[in-house]
Amino acid sequence: MYGLCDSFGCSKNTNIRLKLPAVCFIWQIAMIILFGIFVRYNEESDTHWIEHKKTKRNLSDIENDFYYRYPSFQDVHVMIFVGFGFLMTFLKRYSFGAVGFNFLIAAFGIQWALLMQGWFHSFGTGKILIAVENLINADFCVGSCLIAYGAVLGKVSPVQLLVMTLCGVTLFAIDEFIILNVIHAKDAGGSMSIHTFGACYGLAISWVLYRPDLNQSKRLLGSVYHSDVFAMIGTLFLWLFWPSFNSAICSHGDGQHRAAINTYLALASTVLTSVAISSLSKDKGKLDMVHIQNSTLAGGVAVGTAAEFMLMPYGALIVGFCCGIISTLGYVYVTPFLEKNLKIQDTCGINNLHCMPGIIGGIVGAISAAGATEYVYGSEGLAAMFPMVPRLQGGHQAAGLCVAIVFGIGGGIAVGTVLKLPIWGDPADDNCFDDEVYWERCCSSGHQ
Amino acid sequence: MYGLCDSFGCSKNTNIRLKLPAVCFIWQIAMIILFGIFVRYNEESDTHWIEHKKTKRNLSDIENDFYYRYPSFQDVHVMIFVGFGFLMTFLKRYSFGAVGFNFLIAAFGIQWALLMQGWFHSFGTGKILIAVENLINADFCVGSCLIAYGAVLGKVSPVQLLVMTLCGVTLFAIDEFIILNVIHAKDAGGSMSIHTFGACYGLAISWVLYRPDLNQSKRLLGSVYHSDVFAMIGTLFLWLFWPSFNSAICSHGDGQHRAAINTYLALASTVLTSVAISSLSKDKGKLDMVHIQNSTLAGGVAVGTAAEFMLMPYGALIVGFCCGIISTLGYVYVTPFLEKNLKIQDTCGINNLHCMPGIIGGIVGAISAAGATEYVYGSEGLAAMFPMVPRLQGGHQAAGLCVAIVFGIGGGIAVGTVLKLPIWGDPADDNCFDDEVYWERCCSSGHQ
Amino acid sequence: MYGLCDSFGCSKNTNIRLKLPAVCFIWQIAMIILFGIFVRYNEESDTHWIEHKKTKRNLSDIENDFYYRYPSFQDVHVMIFVGFGFLMTFLKRYSFGAVGFNFLIAAFGIQWALLMQGWFHSFGTGKILIAVENLINADFCVGSCLIAYGAVLGKVSPVQLLVMTLCGVTLFAIDEFIILNVIHAKDAGGSMSIHTFGACYGLAISWVLYRPDLNQSKRLLGSVYHSDVFAMIGTLFLWLFWPSFNSAICSHGDGQHRAAINTYLALASTVLTSVAISSLSKDKGKLDMVHIQNSTLAGGVAVGTAAEFMLMPYGALIVGFCCGIISTLGYVYVTPFLEKNLKIQDTCGINNLHCMPGIIGGIVGAISAAGATEYVYGSEGLAAMFPMVPRLQGGHQAAGLCVAIVFGIGGGIAVGTVLKLPIWGDPADDNCFDDEVYWERCCSSGHQ
Repeated sequence: MYGLCDSFGCSKNTNIRLKLPAVCFIWQIAMIILFGIFVRYNEESDTHWIEHKKTKRNLSDIENDFYYRYPSFQDVHVMIFVGFGFLMTFLKRYSFGAVGFNFLIAAFGIQWALLMQGWFHSFGTGKILIAVENLINADFCVGSCLIAYGAVLGKVSPVQLLVMTLCGVTLFAIDEFIILNVIHAKDAGGSMSIHTFGACYGLAISWVLYRPDLNQSKRLLGSVYHSDVFAMIGTLFLWLFWPSFNSAICSHGDGQHRAAINTYLALASTVLTSVAISSLSKDKGKLDMVHIQNSTLAGGVAVGTAAEFMLMPYGALIVGFCCGIISTLGYVYVTPFLEKNLKIQDTCGINNLHCMPGIIGGIVGAISAAGATEYVYGSEGLAAMFPMVPRLQGGHQAAGLCVAIVFGIGGGIAVGTVLKLPIWGDPADDNCFDDEVYWERCCSSGHQ
Repeated sequence: MYGLCDSFGCSKNTNIRLKLPAVCFIWQIAMIILFGIFVRYNEESDTHWIEHKKTKRNLSDIENDFYYRYPSFQDVHVMIFVGFGFLMTFLKRYSFGAVGFNFLIAAFGIQWALLMQGWFHSFGTGKILIAVENLINADFCVGSCLIAYGAVLGKVSPVQLLVMTLCGVTLFAIDEFIILNVIHAKDAGGSMSIHTFGACYGLAISWVLYRPDLNQSKRLLGSVYHSDVFAMIGTLFLWLFWPSFNSAICSHGDGQHRAAINTYLALASTVLTSVAISSLSKDKGKLDMVHIQNSTLAGGVAVGTAAEFMLMPYGALIVGFCCGIISTLGYVYVTPFLEKNLKIQDTCGINNLHCMPGIIGGIVGAISAAGATEYVYGSEGLAAMFPMVPRLQGGHQAAGLCVAIVFGIGGGIAVGTVLKLPIWGDPADDNCFDDEVYWERCCSSGHQ
Repeated sequence: MYGLCDSFGCSKNTNIRLKLPAVCFIWQIAMIILFGIFVRYNEESDTHWIEHKKTKRNLSDIENDFYYRYPSFQDVHVMIFVGFGFLMTFLKRYSFGAVGFNFLIAAFGIQWALLMQGWFHSFGTGKILIAVENLINADFCVGSCLIAYGAVLGKVSPVQLLVMTLCGVTLFAIDEFIILNVIHAKDAGGSMSIHTFGACYGLAISWVLYRPDLNQSKRLLGSVYHSDVFAMIGTLFLWLFWPSFNSAICSHGDGQHRAAINTYLALASTVLTSVAISSLSKDKGKLDMVHIQNSTLAGGVAVGTAAEFMLMPYGALIVGFCCGIISTLGYVYVTPFLEKNLKIQDTCGINNLHCMPGIIGGIVGAISAAGATEYVYGSEGLAAMFPMVPRLQGGHQAAGLCVAIVFGIGGGIAVGTVLKLPIWGDPADDNCFDDEVYWERCCSSGHQ
């Protein structure tokens, strides 16, 4: 493997003994310095809370935002680290890479996200004051980078992944700021800002990093029985906690409550149509684990933007119904098409799970915002939900979706170009999808 | 396999390419229509909450029922999908079927349960108004069907499972309405309505579907090392979150608090006696994974009905103590007896984990209700807990238990008879316990 | 194996058919009796809550401590049973023993912990009044025994483990009482009382039980690919829920809030430095799964004592930064050193994950307490946090750390000496790290 490729700088030198530690140390030290300068506790996580709550109509401790959001935060946290991590363990020889690199880039990303998102919301004060809502937002932000990881799973080095995450978080923070604070679109569950952006970003990177001779390692691009069971751990924890994901930063009270219900329903509906299409697509009606692992989640993606709205229970079911169909058909038809015709190699099929359902989610959000009426929302409810006239809000939602797509594709092409430089230690074509390149394997030869 | 059996309608034609998609699509469309007609948000999940809370002594947002129950809901949700799903992955060749079909039928069942349970509690108003408590109840309802799945694991087709779930949810809703609203029994953790009913339902179906020649596939009716470890994921998440299960719909405040404590203690006690009996039952005192995976949970089942009562910490320990013994002895003696003498083939041993402990739970509930005194409960506490005189309450509890058994056995025989029709695509005897019949396997031959 | 060793009392008779059931039954009956005499519900989990809350400025049900702490309790519960259990499944032939014995001793330990901890806090009243905070403390207490299990994993019998747990819980309760109530040190996340104590206890036992000929079973002292993936389930759930662990018993409001934030940050930082050192320590910069599974958690351990303090976000990052380095270097250099030079065989490397980071945590706690100022905490905040002058508090913190070390080492030597008696059914040297000695294996030879 190293015979033809001894000099430093050769793109197939996968020795990362200097690069990876250097990046980890330098970036982590930078984080410590920046946190030292900028980050402090806010009034709900600071010892001054004891004084603060007296000034606010004698709040009870239970009204600290911690108790509103911490259970949801922990569910989201499980999704990011266990959900995304295990979902990608399906490859027969890349489980360490899936769960381990996911862990690494998420742990870095949440720190950088706290800074980037903080800067955008602390103009003037100079300090970033953090609390549980910031932790949730940081996890969300990293989620978009983990989605992008799905497209390049098995084909990149951990150093490339860290660069992808650094740039991805930066782009996400700008993108999110424009969508939420400039355009004033609503996007509680992040259909646009997390899923559409993250998927476009990953697909664009994968397009730039296209490997024409990847079929050399195609024998590794499959699963074995138990790696598929491991992946189901990821699927189920994502599916289960998605109601928390979509409701985590909704408004207190009915907002969180309704978002959780809508997501619960959309996801249930998706499972049935995913199974139906999966069975239809195969000989003798057998089910395909790839569809069950992925497409069953599409409803959660697509209901993200509108989860907080008065989508109505049947509306959520309809969204889930459509997305299960579209996502499963995506695995059957669109993924092969993308690879053959557009030269986009998408290891996990993020186009089907995040891109298409995310765009649908943005559209559903725009339509349901445009159609909001005082009759349904009540006058106070409507005013609280939408900062402007509903019809106008619909237009702004649509604008937000476009921003997410543009940022994802543009940013992905730029970052992909950087990642193409032959200095990052990425694997040769025939070492793809085998994590032995980056992970010590124990001497025993008995394992599969 | 298909040589002798080509024509449509042959019971051993396992091709479900038309049946499964048809059932999924039609039923899901029916759900959408019925939800469109009947289901709306209630006053705590609707945008009118902002007005509603003002009318109720100026409630804080934190007093929205969402914050009382959502953490418990998520724990229950994990139990239903990860707990039950992975508990059944122990078979060496049926992990996809276990976790995948569990996922499918639960996702369908929760929708149908929201409707069925809703109709029984919305007489007059015409609309089903849902909130987080409804989601918990839907999960509970589906739990009973997943218990029943345990009896027939590996022997039925997904179409049969969907029919079992449709009918099971319907029966559950009626059964539950009679127990809770007609008889006015208490059953917070569902020892009677969920576990006893579900287990009787599953065992009766398994009895009707008796396969005399099943020993052809007996070689597959065992586990391998790593499938047993997967099953422990299910066991542990069930065991851990059972306190949430039993307390999820208890009354606010001390009710939820006490139910969680009682369940925690009962489960701890069960583990020790399960281990003791398991060790006693084997040569050299070795432990049997089947017992550890299942019997350790029996205390949670048995403390369900009485969890909210003043059972006292030692009372909970005693319940757990007895159930660990009975459940483990059940695996050693009762399961083989049922198969040989009563022709009930019980793949997962649900008789030992749900039926016997569920009945014990019903009896414990009746006794502890009958023995309730004002001395222990306080006058206000007693009035809040029991709608009638305690001794009378004890009788009503016993009546509730009988209803659950009758519904389970009767319903199971009826549904089993329908499932015996040779149209559902169930596997031949020698294809049982191998999910290859319904699941695409990747081409690699390297997996176990 | 039994040829040379037939008589009862031979230390290599691993038949535990009488001993294990006897211990389980007798101890569980003792628990029931002691709970019957001593344990009752407290005013928040008793039916008298309905009266109690009226006497306290008309509390809302949501202010029942259950709603402040139950979500954290469930997270801690997952860490104890899934986290610790699965973290130890990494050995290729000891997954049943890891997850199964972890389950057994934790289930016993929480009962005994409720009693021991209760007795220390119920002088005078005669009754132990329990609520959700007691359950959390019981889980914490058992955590220290599970840490100790890590040092002797694969080398002891379940009977020995139960004795270790009985004594460990007893020592913990005394140790904790001295640290928190006599010395008045603060230790919310248990860096000293849980991690330092537990690790010293386990290492001392392992030292007493030193097996010079263990290299006979060294071939089993490794992992296979999928056992490492199982272990990552443990790692991730520990990592994810550690913010709940460190905040679970902090003061309501800002205390819990801040402890969660500090732990989240410390853990994120640890991941990067663990990865860096792991990569540096190997040829070609490959990562070692042992480091990723364990050292990534060191930041959570080390931030335990100071989590509730105004450590500042950058302070938490620095603690995590250092511990990732120290813990990973520990695996590379200290573990082999301990085995060769000090005759301490540490199967899981608890010295690196719990002992060294725990001591660092104690020191960080002492320093940050000593440096606390009214400027940072506010006058009310400082008074609420520290019962005495900060500088004095720093000294008390340091004293607490010494107590934990002394109790751990002293207790471990004493208990180890008892466990050396040849009556407990421990395995011969060449049966270590293979759980077949205590677990029934199914007949199939195909599994790994």
